[in-house]
Formats: sequence, C-alpha cells, structure tokens
Amino acid sequence: MPVATPIAVTEDELALVRYDSNGLVPAVVQEQGTGAVLMVAWMNEAALRRTLETGRTWFWSRSRQEYWCKGETSGDRQWVREAFYDCDGDVLLFVVEQEGRGACHTGERTCFYRRFGDGAAGTG
Amino acid sequence: MPVATPIAVTEDELALVRYDSNGLVPAVVQEQGTGAVLMVAWMNEAALRRTLETGRTWFWSRSRQEYWCKGETSGDRQWVREAFYDCDGDVLLFVVEQEGRGACHTGERTCFYRRFGDGAAGTG
Repeated sequence: MPVATPIAVTEDELALVRYDSNGLVPAVVQEQGTGAVLMVAWMNEAALRRTLETGRTWFWSRSRQEYWCKGETSGDRQWVREAFYDCDGDVLLFVVEQEGRGACHTGERTCFYRRFGDGAAGTG
Repeated sequence: MPVATPIAVTEDELALVRYDSNGLVPAVVQEQGTGAVLMVAWMNEAALRRTLETGRTWFWSRSRQEYWCKGETSGDRQWVREAFYDCDGDVLLFVVEQEGRGACHTGERTCFYRRFGDGAAGTG
C-alpha cells in the first residue's frame, strides 16, 4: 500500500483559499507521473484540512451532503503528493498517486473518458 | 500563429453537459504535451459552443458577467486540441496549445503556481 505523506500548511496559506457561497471550492485531481486529469470534486474547509492532514483526498458530496474519502469503499484510493491553489485561491489542484483501477466510478481510469466529437456513445 | 481546429459535435453530445443552477460548468484547461493544468474557469452553453466552433477557449466571467476569450487582449491565446466531458457531464476538460507567456494573468505559465506547504509568499 502506498504511504501517506501529510502536507504541513500554515494558517496563512489556508486563509488564501476562497470558498463560494456554499462554502465549497472545486478540486482538480491529477495523476502523478502521467499528468492525467482524473476527476474534479468539491471540498469545504474541513475536507481540505483533512486531505492535507491525512494525505488522502477528502471531498464534500453536494448530492449526499456528507464527507467522502476517495476509494474508502472501492479501494481506489488517492495518495496526495502535491497540493496547489490557484492565483485567485478559488480552485485547488492535487497531484496524487492513484491506487487501484482508477478514479472513475464507471471503472475508467479518468472521469474524462468521453471526448467531444466522438459521438455520444455511453453515458457512464 | 497556431491554427484553430474546430471540433464538430452533435446535439446529443452537447445535451450530456449538465450546468449548475447558474447555467455554468467548470472547465479545466490542460496544456498539450506537458500535461500541466493551466487554469480553471467557467462556461455556459453559449461559451462551450463558441469554444468548440472557434477552437479558442471562451468563458463566462462570473464577476464581470460577460463572455471572454482567453488571450484576446494579452495575446496568450489557447488553441483547443481536444475537449472532454466527465462521467457526470458536469465538468469539462480542454487540452490546448498555450500561446504566449502562459495562462495566468500574473505572468506565470499556470495559475497553480503556489504549493501548499511552501508558505504563503505572494498573493499574485
């Protein structure tokens, strides 16, 4: 099993993150090595802190209104290696080691497996 | 100057995109070749159609409430090479050829130039 590498942040860094009116910020997850964009999900401040502290990706589910840790049930865990915030502080980027099959609940490695111009085959 | 490569899509494909309550969907922009995640901005349906038709990235500015074409004034244009939609249809991914200095208004190549754990130096 991959090893978790927590990221020690300062309160000053965390204070630069800007959440939307629902207290959420989009988090892009990119695979280490391949550079593939795996998925995008949402974090609130607690999910961000938990992600940095545990070295695993934690999100806030808008539909279920609960926290979820990626791969906790599927085994397709994400081990955070680097974490970035953008110039406006309103988008996050996590570079992860992706365990298991991949990031997508459909079984695809990335959630972005459908390309515009290829036709609308399969809805996942 | 790079050449624009419009992407021919079907209405069935466009119908798979799910917009939020404000009619917007987040769009991740990734650099072709390097795989660097350059920026994330928002599109409505018209911006998405314009992006695919023109081969340049068009966004909707939530703060200014207007369309903007990346690099139109700065010259730091983005030429779309591939476009994807995720498993839920609620996030878009554009692989682009980035012209000029880069994607960020600060002069950095990517908007994600600040890493958690490096301290909070510089706010862009």
